[in-house]
Amino acid sequence: MNFSSSLLENAVNELAKLPGIGKKTALRLALHLLKKETSEVEVLVGALSKMKHEIKFCVRCGNISDSELCNICKQSSRNNGVICVVESIKDVLAIENTQQYNGLYHILGGVISPLDGVGPDDLTIDALVKRVDDEKVEELVFALSPNIQGDTTIYYIGKKLAGKKIKITTIARGIAFGGELEYADELTLARSIANRMPVESYVNY
Amino acid sequence: MNFSSSLLENAVNELAKLPGIGKKTALRLALHLLKKETSEVEVLVGALSKMKHEIKFCVRCGNISDSELCNICKQSSRNNGVICVVESIKDVLAIENTQQYNGLYHILGGVISPLDGVGPDDLTIDALVKRVDDEKVEELVFALSPNIQGDTTIYYIGKKLAGKKIKITTIARGIAFGGELEYADELTLARSIANRMPVESYVNY
Repeated sequence: MNFSSSLLENAVNELAKLPGIGKKTALRLALHLLKKETSEVEVLVGALSKMKHEIKFCVRCGNISDSELCNICKQSSRNNGVICVVESIKDVLAIENTQQYNGLYHILGGVISPLDGVGPDDLTIDALVKRVDDEKVEELVFALSPNIQGDTTIYYIGKKLAGKKIKITTIARGIAFGGELEYADELTLARSIANRMPVESYVNY
Repeated sequence: MNFSSSLLENAVNELAKLPGIGKKTALRLALHLLKKETSEVEVLVGALSKMKHEIKFCVRCGNISDSELCNICKQSSRNNGVICVVESIKDVLAIENTQQYNGLYHILGGVISPLDGVGPDDLTIDALVKRVDDEKVEELVFALSPNIQGDTTIYYIGKKLAGKKIKITTIARGIAFGGELEYADELTLARSIANRMPVESYVNY
């Protein structure tokens, strides 16, 4: 594409590096910004720069935070006895949006995946074990990706915690609400039959 | 959504103001930037800021440019006798990408649209008339949106240029290549029948 301006070309190339943004979308965004007031562009640019430079990670759970402890760890109304173990910040946001969980979190930073070069030492597993020891944790709820890597990670951490008096659970897996049986993959369907549950507990939810 | 960080929330809100970017995509982009090196984020932010502050508009045709005259107006190989009149910079890029046009451009900045509060004085029509007088222009090719507003604008400019020895044309409208007759709207189909052309000229293309 001939942009007739290297400034525009640079901006488009940089925007196109973002996930899910191709050259055409990048051009649309750049031309949109060109039409906007300089102050509005400054606000966007400033927000991105400030976020990158000033954002902190909670020293306790690894969640993003504006201060040393994140808002969730700071809340006194939270149940400190339950820790939900997730892969990333995105998962915390997803679970928080359900407004159904009142415990704390622990962000692993991924799952054990030797093929991708991610070993246990690349994750915050040691910090999690330390929290279990220090914080009177009664239950760990694993909310990891439902695949081999996720299961391996749960198994590995379970081994590490062997002998400690702690309940280890994982979020329920099965057919999604609104999902149709015939389109469910075999593994999901097989697991959801194996882990069938009494109707009362289903209705009570 | 509870972001647990006002810095992240700000960045997401600003990104979500971009066209075609919703809250979820904005969050994905923000988390992507958080994962990237600070230097990479600085390059993106710098490119956007630099583009907004330093980009110029060609004094002759209104195209974006890094200097006073744009690359197209500067090219000596261009045919100075033909000006293609377009609404926006995006249209220049689209036509340039076809590599079929060798004349100059004139960017109106929109089309006459009283309902949207856009009158002739909001467009660069006077500058276009001046160019026609000053630059020995032989032909104006209108490449505006194929709607009432576009047609009104062509009519208005045609009136302004009445009496001048200049050829006024518009890009051909009709059924797009690969388009199916049965799905074409009635106006397009009616016009493309009314403006039918000899098969030779079609084949020669």
